Amino acid sequence: MKSAEIIAVGSELLTPSRLDTNSLKITERLNAVGIQVRLKTVVGDDRATVANLVEAALTRSDLVVLTGGLGPTDDDVTRDAVSEALALPLEEDPRIVERIQQRFEERGLRMPEINRRQAMVPRGASVLENVNGTAPGLWIDCGDKAVVLFPGPPREMQPMLDLVVHERLAPRSGGAGVYRRVLRIAGRTESHAEERAQPIYSRWLAGATPIETTILAAPGQIELHLSVRTTSENEARARLEAAVTELEAAFGADVFSSDGRSLEEVVGGLLRARAWRIAVAESCTGGLVLSRLTDVPGSSDYVERGLVAYSNRAKTELLRVPDDLIVADGAVSEPVALAMAKGAASTAGVAIGVGVTGIAGPGGGSDRKPVGTVVVAVVGPEMQRVRTFRFPGERRQVKFQASQLALDTVRRLLLEDASRDG
Amino acid sequence: MKSAEIIAVGSELLTPSRLDTNSLKITERLNAVGIQVRLKTVVGDDRATVANLVEAALTRSDLVVLTGGLGPTDDDVTRDAVSEALALPLEEDPRIVERIQQRFEERGLRMPEINRRQAMVPRGASVLENVNGTAPGLWIDCGDKAVVLFPGPPREMQPMLDLVVHERLAPRSGGAGVYRRVLRIAGRTESHAEERAQPIYSRWLAGATPIETTILAAPGQIELHLSVRTTSENEARARLEAAVTELEAAFGADVFSSDGRSLEEVVGGLLRARAWRIAVAESCTGGLVLSRLTDVPGSSDYVERGLVAYSNRAKTELLRVPDDLIVADGAVSEPVALAMAKGAASTAGVAIGVGVTGIAGPGGGSDRKPVGTVVVAVVGPEMQRVRTFRFPGERRQVKFQASQLALDTVRRLLLEDASRDG
Repeated sequence: MKSAEIIAVGSELLTPSRLDTNSLKITERLNAVGIQVRLKTVVGDDRATVANLVEAALTRSDLVVLTGGLGPTDDDVTRDAVSEALALPLEEDPRIVERIQQRFEERGLRMPEINRRQAMVPRGASVLENVNGTAPGLWIDCGDKAVVLFPGPPREMQPMLDLVVHERLAPRSGGAGVYRRVLRIAGRTESHAEERAQPIYSRWLAGATPIETTILAAPGQIELHLSVRTTSENEARARLEAAVTELEAAFGADVFSSDGRSLEEVVGGLLRARAWRIAVAESCTGGLVLSRLTDVPGSSDYVERGLVAYSNRAKTELLRVPDDLIVADGAVSEPVALAMAKGAASTAGVAIGVGVTGIAGPGGGSDRKPVGTVVVAVVGPEMQRVRTFRFPGERRQVKFQASQLALDTVRRLLLEDASRDG
Repeated sequence: MKSAEIIAVGSELLTPSRLDTNSLKITERLNAVGIQVRLKTVVGDDRATVANLVEAALTRSDLVVLTGGLGPTDDDVTRDAVSEALALPLEEDPRIVERIQQRFEERGLRMPEINRRQAMVPRGASVLENVNGTAPGLWIDCGDKAVVLFPGPPREMQPMLDLVVHERLAPRSGGAGVYRRVLRIAGRTESHAEERAQPIYSRWLAGATPIETTILAAPGQIELHLSVRTTSENEARARLEAAVTELEAAFGADVFSSDGRSLEEVVGGLLRARAWRIAVAESCTGGLVLSRLTDVPGSSDYVERGLVAYSNRAKTELLRVPDDLIVADGAVSEPVALAMAKGAASTAGVAIGVGVTGIAGPGGGSDRKPVGTVVVAVVGPEMQRVRTFRFPGERRQVKFQASQLALDTVRRLLLEDASRDG
């Protein structure tokens, strides 16, 4: 089996406050035995529509996984819908009735008559025991393909999922699995990344074990997701490692992570390697740069302090930024950002100082310095960098992109320092 | 229009770590103009499958909403798929090309050739301007039905959604809608909120226009979602207003918002009303409290500065916390939190000072002060509050809950001050 579709049944999943999260765990387990999820659907308690969806899914995919709609009430339509779609009549399974009666009796209750519905089984289906509830799951072979029904509550669904993967799917997978790597890139647009990467990954698609590539624009960074489907884990890891190396060569220092680490983790690692400490002076980011740095466990080893100088007075008092510099160049300017970075480093007595100033909006912009203008300065031993950017978006997006620029500038400065030594 | 289906396009949404969350906001807005969502699908970047899904959706529902797949790369198949499904040829729209070129030029860049793909439009489609990105949205009438294409990034999608609902869907709705209010509560558990609210909202269900209530535990706060479905907006608003008043009386000062405002907005409003400024001294939250305060537009009116004293040296140097206090009580203690708050207020010369210290983990805990222990102090004119809590969860959860406690403590102190005056 290579492809699957997941259908979550339940009208409550179509309201503005609920998401189908079962599909994440199901996807993870199916991927691990080499099955790709092609489609996910959420549908209400509507028998005819569910039946149509099952029919359509079987024309496209090898495995159809349904979750939910196995309860005892009239709303619970999954059994009927699947019976209709596969033209298999429903029959009562006396062993299921007995098991449900037992569950009720253990709690000192009598089984309500409606629970009998949960014992109705399409002819030929295998019953999957529910260790945490009354609704059993069902597995139905359809030639080379299969349909499987799980209850909706995650604690009832998950033990059945484990069982099905272990006993029914893994043996048919021939050991195939899907393996992934993610490359993260800073300071580039999606189109630039696509133009640079496309000639490389189009070659990989032609290989005996093709590598699939997806480009994702996350806030302030571009991600390249690579995946390989193969029966040999060693081959997969080697293929992906070679692919990552090729992309790293093409993108150079723009790649900040190929092992899942976030930008703040990478910066932390570089600081730790040098045993350098950092102090950050922030204006428009309002503490976000330091908050992100301190999201990393153990960051107290290299984070000394942060100074959020939101007012001009705070910039002079805390960071010794000269008043006349602010008057001459404005608070959002390269000289002020640099003075903030130097003030942070010198007052804290640390190797690396960062200054971030800008106009997060919606107010405060001007023709010369529109909303979104951000200046970042980083100073280190015998090195400094100042960069001015203009970011799109509203206040919180500008703040985030500014924090990303600040962290990325620290990263590039530390890399440069490392290569100078080498 | 009565029914809709949502199709989210993007292979990354079929991996074990990503969910389509756009559909929640879309559902909320469609419900508000009386349109029910019948089906939600997530599909990969596969032109033929997307085309088939659009055809099938149009046989069932009045409106088909697609999100994602409008980028400039080969992976972005939504335009082509819809053009195929509706048999409408794609044509380049020179106004879109011009607008995209402009966006690139504003950032000092040249438009890459591949971005031209984003200007391809199925014949007869109306273009929905993208104020936050390059990919325009599209609206296509199909007899009584319609297909609408939105970009995937939420900040690009949402303004277009608002526009489409306001200009195209609301006029066709015949006035029926679902109306909602959200009450936000701080400092209470979900079960406490349920116990307090249940006797109240069970009565509402019996009314001629029943109010449905859902209790949601969000990080650091509990939300009560109330909704009413009716054709009379006035009746809905009156019913909901009475319900909110009843819950506010039951929960007292624990309710911090019933108008959609976040905790940081509420705190900002209270500071602004008093014309007081605030300075925040943070240790374990690492700048998060100040970053949240400065997420609010106009916050420079009342935020003076922030001091992230991550090291003990920073606590003494920046905040004048006496060394012997740290030695005697430990950095995570009520005397130190109070000294931090006082130091912040006095060095900045402002009315309100906040001190936050704690153990975010995973390291640094002890038997007496386990990971998750957080102390918050707030000082104001003739008032002060100190609170110690222990929060569950990993580092980032502890940080967030600590920031929530700090903001809530400021809010309660300001409310108390206001009631003393009254």
